[in-house]
Amino acid sequence: MNTEERYRRGWEKLKEVDGEVGERVIDSLKDIAPDFARYLIEFPFGDIYTRPGIDLKSREIAVVAALTALGNAAPQLKVHIQGAINVGCTRQEIVEVIMQMAVYAGFPAALNGLSAAKEVFKERDAAGKG
Amino acid sequence: MNTEERYRRGWEKLKEVDGEVGERVIDSLKDIAPDFARYLIEFPFGDIYTRPGIDLKSREIAVVAALTALGNAAPQLKVHIQGAINVGCTRQEIVEVIMQMAVYAGFPAALNGLSAAKEVFKERDAAGKG
Amino acid sequence: MNTEERYRRGWEKLKEVDGEVGERVIDSLKDIAPDFARYLIEFPFGDIYTRPGIDLKSREIAVVAALTALGNAAPQLKVHIQGAINVGCTRQEIVEVIMQMAVYAGFPAALNGLSAAKEVFKERDAAGKG
Amino acid sequence: MNTEERYRRGWEKLKEVDGEVGERVIDSLKDIAPDFARYLIEFPFGDIYTRPGIDLKSREIAVVAALTALGNAAPQLKVHIQGAINVGCTRQEIVEVIMQMAVYAGFPAALNGLSAAKEVFKERDAAGKG
Amino acid sequence: MNTEERYRRGWEKLKEVDGEVGERVIDSLKDIAPDFARYLIEFPFGDIYTRPGIDLKSREIAVVAALTALGNAAPQLKVHIQGAINVGCTRQEIVEVIMQMAVYAGFPAALNGLSAAKEVFKERDAAGKG
Amino acid sequence: MNTEERYRRGWEKLKEVDGEVGERVIDSLKDIAPDFARYLIEFPFGDIYTRPGIDLKSREIAVVAALTALGNAAPQLKVHIQGAINVGCTRQEIVEVIMQMAVYAGFPAALNGLSAAKEVFKERDAAGKG
Repeated sequence: MNTEERYRRGWEKLKEVDGEVGERVIDSLKDIAPDFARYLIEFPFGDIYTRPGIDLKSREIAVVAALTALGNAAPQLKVHIQGAINVGCTRQEIVEVIMQMAVYAGFPAALNGLSAAKEVFKERDAAGKG
Repeated sequence: MNTEERYRRGWEKLKEVDGEVGERVIDSLKDIAPDFARYLIEFPFGDIYTRPGIDLKSREIAVVAALTALGNAAPQLKVHIQGAINVGCTRQEIVEVIMQMAVYAGFPAALNGLSAAKEVFKERDAAGKG
Repeated sequence: MNTEERYRRGWEKLKEVDGEVGERVIDSLKDIAPDFARYLIEFPFGDIYTRPGIDLKSREIAVVAALTALGNAAPQLKVHIQGAINVGCTRQEIVEVIMQMAVYAGFPAALNGLSAAKEVFKERDAAGKG
Repeated sequence: MNTEERYRRGWEKLKEVDGEVGERVIDSLKDIAPDFARYLIEFPFGDIYTRPGIDLKSREIAVVAALTALGNAAPQLKVHIQGAINVGCTRQEIVEVIMQMAVYAGFPAALNGLSAAKEVFKERDAAGKG
Repeated sequence: MNTEERYRRGWEKLKEVDGEVGERVIDSLKDIAPDFARYLIEFPFGDIYTRPGIDLKSREIAVVAALTALGNAAPQLKVHIQGAINVGCTRQEIVEVIMQMAVYAGFPAALNGLSAAKEVFKERDAAGKG
Repeated sequence: MNTEERYRRGWEKLKEVDGEVGERVIDSLKDIAPDFARYLIEFPFGDIYTRPGIDLKSREIAVVAALTALGNAAPQLKVHIQGAINVGCTRQEIVEVIMQMAVYAGFPAALNGLSAAKEVFKERDAAGKG
């Protein structure tokens, strides 16, 4: 496979998972680090997300859990809460995963994760999305 | 529900998820912090793991992801790689989740997670487990 | 002891430590994760904060230190700076603990902790509190 | 060497590296923790930054890398992106270091580091600086 | 005050808090970074630990809490569990602080902190210390 | 450029930077996650390390700084201390970078980084390397 195919495959997966929020992330990199936008499409989405062996829903559960636990990447957590819904997670499943992080990363991490979820759900409600 | 029922329910869930490794964690707390052993059974297992709304397999995927990303709790990561297998994850699914953490927490975190998985798989092979 | 008593005991301790700020945290969880509000009252406050063996002031010193060092939970740090004052810490003691974190988690963590303290002290001054 | 000389040496180094942003950090500590302002001048700048053995540019590359990777000290990262430029790093070098952190701390850490760089570069453009 | 007095004051405080374990840390730096040994005596112990405004016992409670929560500095956590005992903390107080970290940094952090405490208490028992 | 060229370019860069230690990391992945070994060669080394815009020595300084600060990836820190020497850093420069991390991530992180450096230097001395 050549680099061009990998990029195209990554771009399609990015749109499937993150939708227009993902595209906005890519856009925001255009003037400061355009190559980084390309890597972001190629490696995480072209290489990793397209792998078989685990379903997309489980991949997004893993990301929501990790970003909640790390607690230092709020914008990306919000993108992936959207992504989790896009690939079939219910709001309840997302809330369960974030709540569970209280056990592994403490209550503050879980509380801040729930705030992020609340904002995303509100934005979706305002946009008439489920 | 009284505290006793909550404890009993947590203990059964701990055995279902973590098996004998979980029991060894509890044992190791007996002389230094017996109450903490009780809390560990009651809150994470009696309250959180018994909740409906998401399946146990997804819960363990979330924990393997979070502990790989945090990178500072190797013994607990090994316990939960075991736990993930106990509740139905394949080895391949576990490896996929850990590899994906390279994107969210860096390659060193993923490499150390894979080392933990390798040790667990070797121990299971030696014990004739799948 | 049954769950109801544990909840009531936790609620009283929450009010003693965190005052109305604690109640606002609980309120903010009502629509997204009401069970998590209950766990927050039951486990940290009903189980942990009510334990004998160490005084409340030392507990709050421990929390201010930990949240300053972790550096990824600014809202909770502010709640606990309030809490530390509520249970008898002087402003000077809080500043000393935060400054000391420069040694264990670096100067940026301490600087951000001092910013949080400054905001809390200003809010208290504006409200005519000591 | 006495404490006074160490302070003076640190103050000059702080101005050389961080310029007026560094002075603002010191000012912001005046009312809450004036001694901490003094320590910040004496230890990091008076002791560490004045050491021979490695050039200032490499020191700032190290700091930009570390603060990007830790991901929990955005204000200090911005100060040191300024500092890196002040001691001779090009914007491209700074972007390269931040991008590289995707490998060691994950893509979210690198994305947030690039946002910080973008803000600093924009501020410098607005002020007519290179 | 000149640098020599600061060093001497720091060295005495180091011995008071950390005892011979502290001296071993200093010794281990002799061949790789002797200046760092000096800084460690001067800044944390000469400047910070000798400050008034909070008692030494509270300072050690803060450090045990922070290092348990960060979870990536096991050797230093053990040194400071010793230090906490040296300045008057009971074993029970130390266990309470570590257990409490389950709330702020998760159960794995608290479990690993309890393991560290268990090792220190065992070493002290073997040496006939309280 | 096709994937094969990218792999080959990454493999050569990996050998230049990390030498035989890098190859051992790749080998250790063969049975558990061979694709991850490939990604490790392709993305960090094939894409990032081969970029112009900053010299290799600065790249390794950035990595040593970041891994010391994060403090949860000791094996990878040791690999990159070797790597830093391989691309032209002096032992003194490495020690300076690690010491500086005391300012940004605390003294424990710097102490553990110095321990890692000490081990690497000892291994190199035993192997008759500079």
